[in-house]
Amino acid sequence: MVITGKISLKSRGECDILDITPQVAQQVTKAEINSGVVTLFVAGSTAGLTTIEFEPGLISDFQSVWERVAPKSIPYNHDRRWGDGNGYSHVQASLLGASLVVPFHKQKLTLGTWQQIVVVDFDNRPRSRQIIVQIMGD
Amino acid sequence: MVITGKISLKSRGECDILDITPQVAQQVTKAEINSGVVTLFVAGSTAGLTTIEFEPGLISDFQSVWERVAPKSIPYNHDRRWGDGNGYSHVQASLLGASLVVPFHKQKLTLGTWQQIVVVDFDNRPRSRQIIVQIMGD
Amino acid sequence: MVITGKISLKSRGECDILDITPQVAQQVTKAEINSGVVTLFVAGSTAGLTTIEFEPGLISDFQSVWERVAPKSIPYNHDRRWGDGNGYSHVQASLLGASLVVPFHKQKLTLGTWQQIVVVDFDNRPRSRQIIVQIMGD
Repeated sequence: MVITGKISLKSRGECDILDITPQVAQQVTKAEINSGVVTLFVAGSTAGLTTIEFEPGLISDFQSVWERVAPKSIPYNHDRRWGDGNGYSHVQASLLGASLVVPFHKQKLTLGTWQQIVVVDFDNRPRSRQIIVQIMGD
Repeated sequence: MVITGKISLKSRGECDILDITPQVAQQVTKAEINSGVVTLFVAGSTAGLTTIEFEPGLISDFQSVWERVAPKSIPYNHDRRWGDGNGYSHVQASLLGASLVVPFHKQKLTLGTWQQIVVVDFDNRPRSRQIIVQIMGD
Repeated sequence: MVITGKISLKSRGECDILDITPQVAQQVTKAEINSGVVTLFVAGSTAGLTTIEFEPGLISDFQSVWERVAPKSIPYNHDRRWGDGNGYSHVQASLLGASLVVPFHKQKLTLGTWQQIVVVDFDNRPRSRQIIVQIMGD
């Protein structure tokens, strides 16, 4: 059994990190499937998905890491060609990854107590985003 | 058809890397499902999952990479707020990712010859861990 | 319903990035499954999978990032033991990840307009690769 839904949200960009755990849990409850997986996928090439303990200290720590890995300040060939200035956003998003798969059992996500599902929007401007939420199981 | 199991293990933390391939393969065999996917998920926000050639040289190489990406020696806002000293562990775990999905066919995981499934425990102390192993297919 | 296929390709190695979106889309169409997920998996420990806007500027930007994260020029313990000189390839592949899961709905992949599915081959020599393409849904 497969149910395809989505979550629509607005982000501020620049590594904005949004907790979507309540929306995902709600869609799993509504699906009335006992056990299975929820596959989350960001349609777009400047955002990604992961899990994190969603507290402000850690959010800023996670944002800082990207300056070491794919700094905003260096030149990007993407920007030379397309001029939209978000080369770093693309590279960061491709590194983090666009999909996340979370099992659920008895309609409950198998997350840890301090573990939330987040969208990370790396783009250099505010964006509207669609997260695909596909629930599969029996 | 969905079967939800788990693997319980003890890690030493500090980027301890544990090969769980034999346990995953065994659960796939026991499931008696011909083809499908096994979804692995770490419940917790200071550990992650990936595949690697599990040999001691590479294990130490993979451990070294994190000092460039999210060094242990720099200050973390998470630690200022919570004082548990594992800010770097959280950041590293969120970068690596908590889920891994491996297809199987004729009850055999589709891994390469030199490719093992590992849990990477980034926490700053020994931990007991639960890995969710969910097998789905027909 | 589960269909297990594969994509065979040749890469040049050294962070060669290959767009496999058309092949994946074709296999989804042929499967005649309405909704579900396609799980992609690289059998091998020196290649990975992600999504990216597949244009030459960004491809070179993404290739450059690895020199900061796991540089080719530093010594690797894997190379000391095995002498094959691809320690950096293994570390990069384990960081990027071997699996990618993409939902589809009405036989259409839920990708963004500028988002392609790519194999990244980090090995230090040309390789033949097999990508597992497993389609599951109803």
